[in-house]
Amino acid sequence: MPVGTQGMVKTLSPDELIDVVDAKIILGNTYHLYLRPGLDVIREMGGLHKFTTWEKPILTDSGGFQVWSLAKLRKISENGVEFSNHLDGAKTMLTPELSMEIQATLGSDIAMLFDECPPYPCEEKYAANSLGLTTRWARRCKEWHEVNASKHVPWQLNTQTETLHTNLPQQIFGIVQGSTYADLREQSAKELVEIGFDGYAVGGISVGEPEHEMLRAIENAVPFLPKNKPRYAMGLGTPPQMLEMIARGVDMFDCVMPTRVARHGLAFTADGPIHIKNKEFEFDSTPLDENTHPSLQKYSRSFIRHLFRASEMLSLRLLSLHNLHFYLRLMSDSREHIAAGTFSKFKNDFNQRYLNSTLQ
Amino acid sequence: MPVGTQGMVKTLSPDELIDVVDAKIILGNTYHLYLRPGLDVIREMGGLHKFTTWEKPILTDSGGFQVWSLAKLRKISENGVEFSNHLDGAKTMLTPELSMEIQATLGSDIAMLFDECPPYPCEEKYAANSLGLTTRWARRCKEWHEVNASKHVPWQLNTQTETLHTNLPQQIFGIVQGSTYADLREQSAKELVEIGFDGYAVGGISVGEPEHEMLRAIENAVPFLPKNKPRYAMGLGTPPQMLEMIARGVDMFDCVMPTRVARHGLAFTADGPIHIKNKEFEFDSTPLDENTHPSLQKYSRSFIRHLFRASEMLSLRLLSLHNLHFYLRLMSDSREHIAAGTFSKFKNDFNQRYLNSTLQ
Repeated sequence: MPVGTQGMVKTLSPDELIDVVDAKIILGNTYHLYLRPGLDVIREMGGLHKFTTWEKPILTDSGGFQVWSLAKLRKISENGVEFSNHLDGAKTMLTPELSMEIQATLGSDIAMLFDECPPYPCEEKYAANSLGLTTRWARRCKEWHEVNASKHVPWQLNTQTETLHTNLPQQIFGIVQGSTYADLREQSAKELVEIGFDGYAVGGISVGEPEHEMLRAIENAVPFLPKNKPRYAMGLGTPPQMLEMIARGVDMFDCVMPTRVARHGLAFTADGPIHIKNKEFEFDSTPLDENTHPSLQKYSRSFIRHLFRASEMLSLRLLSLHNLHFYLRLMSDSREHIAAGTFSKFKNDFNQRYLNSTLQ
Repeated sequence: MPVGTQGMVKTLSPDELIDVVDAKIILGNTYHLYLRPGLDVIREMGGLHKFTTWEKPILTDSGGFQVWSLAKLRKISENGVEFSNHLDGAKTMLTPELSMEIQATLGSDIAMLFDECPPYPCEEKYAANSLGLTTRWARRCKEWHEVNASKHVPWQLNTQTETLHTNLPQQIFGIVQGSTYADLREQSAKELVEIGFDGYAVGGISVGEPEHEMLRAIENAVPFLPKNKPRYAMGLGTPPQMLEMIARGVDMFDCVMPTRVARHGLAFTADGPIHIKNKEFEFDSTPLDENTHPSLQKYSRSFIRHLFRASEMLSLRLLSLHNLHFYLRLMSDSREHIAAGTFSKFKNDFNQRYLNSTLQ
């Protein structure tokens, strides 16, 4: 899932996300959209889909991760998290119920439960207590959602659920926590499955831990999640990391990496990432990658390098489009190879070329 | 003409310029492109058209105006202008011959002669001397162009002139100077016409003078320019100013205003400009303007305001697209009304609504 922090993926238009990236779903950030433009605007405009003109599915996070990473003066209690926001410092209390209400008002197709994301490294006792809190919050989220969501989700207000983006009511996903502790990950997964959600995420990863810990967290959680429900790894990762997680049973990812590094001039290629501002591309008339989208084939590395050095926004857009296209093609290739039973060879071939290139 | 300072119009892609803006020609800045990426890159990439993927005509300015407005430590002599560039302070000598050579190497369809642009206000004696220099430089430009251009213009190198953008050799336009002095404007125009160019521009306007002086400069120059050659007012202006200049016989404009003000959140409408960040648009579900391009109709002022306040580049792009579409539609409407003999009424109706709106 490309990430649309403020409602739309940075530098891109909804049309480009469909025509070039072929995105089937994007992620919106509850924390950011709650602060600005705020729920009054979203409600008045008929929800996030109508507001942003994005007619395909949207997943919203719960806001918990941004409170953890952006806000100041956080105070966690049984009731929720009190924090000063990063825009004007105003104090806000975010509870499981409020997170669900915001996500219902945004009208996302998939809402995430409100969890506590423990830091890395994390003592076992803290991780266990935090996990307990996340499970109790998960129950409160589900309870609020069952009773109230349909009164807030714009496209469910008239008991109508058939839209351009879904014919289901808003779905809600649980988030497995438990830090680096295998027994805690197992406990979290089992508790969430018992409560029952439409899908399950593995959270608390990509928070600074080494790669092997990240993969272990996946390995410790996935076996305890139902095979017939989506399994989602939150906030990841490099192309090889994603293939490793797919190999471990992950179905979904969100990732700011393709667009964030694009804005710093990095492009993904089958031979590893390249830094477009490097001198070696000054006279390079080839496209960013041999398999980039047809509409991007005409732009030479030389021209994109020039635009990037001249601080022209078009360069950030072309790099973002290319990188998202690269990532989503990696995902669709993976799906094809899984179906054909050739995923393992595909992964090894990809990694062989990507990781061993002289470009690295 | 939309302005593509660094080779492409800021925030936009070549495809958007054709599909949404319906641009027939854009302007490239000789000064900027000479400094970066430099002629070696442009030459190796086959000229500015191939480098930027823009397949329609390009006009390049001579670099003189940017030397005047951006560079430091300028020293004007009979030979040319010595200056320290604004990027790294390196000293460069720009001469009429070098300006022509750069423009030929860029491979623009229309090259402008290298002139001196006197400041406003300007003493008559300075203006007269400057005008003399501009005329002498005009002769040197034409001389160099006649002998050498075909050896540098990428699409003329093999005596081939038929391309996607033109079937003519590179054209060269003169620039009428003379500041605010009617007799000097007349003298300049007559001297240039005697040398003979493919088109004629009025320069030294939009340099800080009041609007009536700007219109007087046009009135003082246009009557002495051939009716069967394009007449081009450089670097202008507001929509009403452009209509006034069209009424005085101007055929062409370049103008950074639609894109520059877009990046500051201003959108042009039939009822005058609006500032998208204003609170009044917070809940406004209407498009930027009732007649904006169909592909932009779906974006509400509310959404664009949100994107702008969140510093999202997409807002700058949408505003740039809209403003250029507004300007180029104003031009095509003007052409239609001129052909139908109804331009004067059209201009008055437009100004009536645009200038008297409560939005002003």
